[in-house]
Amino acid sequence: MKVLVTGAGGFIGTKVVEVLRARGRIGESSITALALADQSLAWVPAGALALEGDLGSASALARVAEFAPDVTIHLAAVPGGAAEKDYALGRRVNLDTSLALFEALAVRRERPPIVVYASSVAVYGATLPEVVRPDTPLGPPLTYGAHKLACEILLADFSRRGLLDGRSVRLPGVVARPREPNGFASAFMSDILHALAAGERYTCPVSPQATTWLMSAWRCAENLVHAASMEVGADPARAWTLPVLRLSMGQIVDTLAGLYGADRRALADYAPQPALEAVFANYPLLDNSAARALGLADDGSPEALVLRALATRYPPPLRRRSQ
Amino acid sequence: MKVLVTGAGGFIGTKVVEVLRARGRIGESSITALALADQSLAWVPAGALALEGDLGSASALARVAEFAPDVTIHLAAVPGGAAEKDYALGRRVNLDTSLALFEALAVRRERPPIVVYASSVAVYGATLPEVVRPDTPLGPPLTYGAHKLACEILLADFSRRGLLDGRSVRLPGVVARPREPNGFASAFMSDILHALAAGERYTCPVSPQATTWLMSAWRCAENLVHAASMEVGADPARAWTLPVLRLSMGQIVDTLAGLYGADRRALADYAPQPALEAVFANYPLLDNSAARALGLADDGSPEALVLRALATRYPPPLRRRSQ
Repeated sequence: MKVLVTGAGGFIGTKVVEVLRARGRIGESSITALALADQSLAWVPAGALALEGDLGSASALARVAEFAPDVTIHLAAVPGGAAEKDYALGRRVNLDTSLALFEALAVRRERPPIVVYASSVAVYGATLPEVVRPDTPLGPPLTYGAHKLACEILLADFSRRGLLDGRSVRLPGVVARPREPNGFASAFMSDILHALAAGERYTCPVSPQATTWLMSAWRCAENLVHAASMEVGADPARAWTLPVLRLSMGQIVDTLAGLYGADRRALADYAPQPALEAVFANYPLLDNSAARALGLADDGSPEALVLRALATRYPPPLRRRSQ
Repeated sequence: MKVLVTGAGGFIGTKVVEVLRARGRIGESSITALALADQSLAWVPAGALALEGDLGSASALARVAEFAPDVTIHLAAVPGGAAEKDYALGRRVNLDTSLALFEALAVRRERPPIVVYASSVAVYGATLPEVVRPDTPLGPPLTYGAHKLACEILLADFSRRGLLDGRSVRLPGVVARPREPNGFASAFMSDILHALAAGERYTCPVSPQATTWLMSAWRCAENLVHAASMEVGADPARAWTLPVLRLSMGQIVDTLAGLYGADRRALADYAPQPALEAVFANYPLLDNSAARALGLADDGSPEALVLRALATRYPPPLRRRSQ
């Protein structure tokens, strides 16, 4: 089985590559070739094919078509904050390049190639019901989510045509991103973990009651790899919101205090920003039974989420080493 | 008020132009300039600006931007059957050109330009609940509908950004199209009207029990013009399914028999095709109260629908002339 990972040099992509290497297979099938696509790959494992440069360029797409992956995990994207500031960049990367990739892969073959598309919970509207279910209407409040939703619809259409076997999985807040400016409006979800674990002060831009949907990057990578082999049935939309832990910022601080010491609680203070609160701070309950039935999974507990989120190796240790 | 109509030479477009000319205004505002865009305009009314050629070309888009319409009614599209057969054509016209048009219009002005987008009930899934409501999940069963839905989402995003004032209205089966090959898989809805009114035999490709959502082209044109001035409120999706008459083919035959003579009933026979039945023949009830509250309207009665559908002049006569 030949596997392509786009955005392979990114925060989630590097972890997907680690999971693929550690397992050596997807479902029942051994990985025989691995190709990685990214603007600037810092690291290419032995034996992997690197597709550097702009994934939307004709040359990169020709190499993708030539490689003819059985499975593609499509992560390459401009994050939400950056896409909102620079419409043209977001359109080119998040919409045009994704559609061009689907088209490059959609060559009639005996078995349609599998495409796992990293969509986002940003496809949901700003106003949500008490419980989000599979039939909750969508309505992206940012251009990033609008482009993600458009790509979900376009990928489902390629699947209906029998040209691709698409699986869109909607990622929640994935933590812990590196502490650097990254264009993610949701960066605070990661920054609070780094700061409090390291014993530093942190001013949270949403209130302690603000609830978010969270997943560690390692669990996210495992879900993306699992999505490539899960039996998806006849659902024509082919899009699933990943199971999440729904946590308030207060719960996150409590979890950090439990793991790293009660003094952490005093390090957090709050200066809520209305714009961030509106988009990221009111996530309701999520009925994720359909995604669970497919074998997709959350982190299990707030403690496991924090430990996986801050772990640098795979598989991540799920107990805190005594100091 | 400057008005642009795309697809102005088409079946619905010509009727939109007639309605605009007859009324001379949109809402409270007089029409001061009219531009028509189409590949091949057969007829351009005096005083109107013609934008011929490919609407997706840089030159056509530059002329659109220069004209700077206050209202655009965007009809230009490749029909569903043709888009399904020729993916590249459908993508270019129905997706790329629509998005390019939105971008050409989305220049920050004191008041965002109004864009009425002719979407389609093809955005709904093949399996629908007993009553379709505003929150019924969408899931286009054809590429045409997938591209229409993607454009609804992209237009809503331009509206959210404050760059356009978008209003997507979903058109049902619009009758009666001319009796010629036109790429519409739904052509039978029009052909049965022409044939039976003219006293000719007609073999219907769906069963007498098959229910469809119908609207006359004149009423459709009136709705599109109305959509440009209606007060839409804060609904972020900015998409409304037009009110429709839900009629079975048997009811349509009965209506034609009532208007044109009982002998018409014997002229219809049925040879249902499963592929057409699956897509066009099981339309359920439609809760269109939200669209009605905005002033959008169906034809009122099956008789009025048939008479408007077969009328060539505006306003259409709503009584059959005695013979």
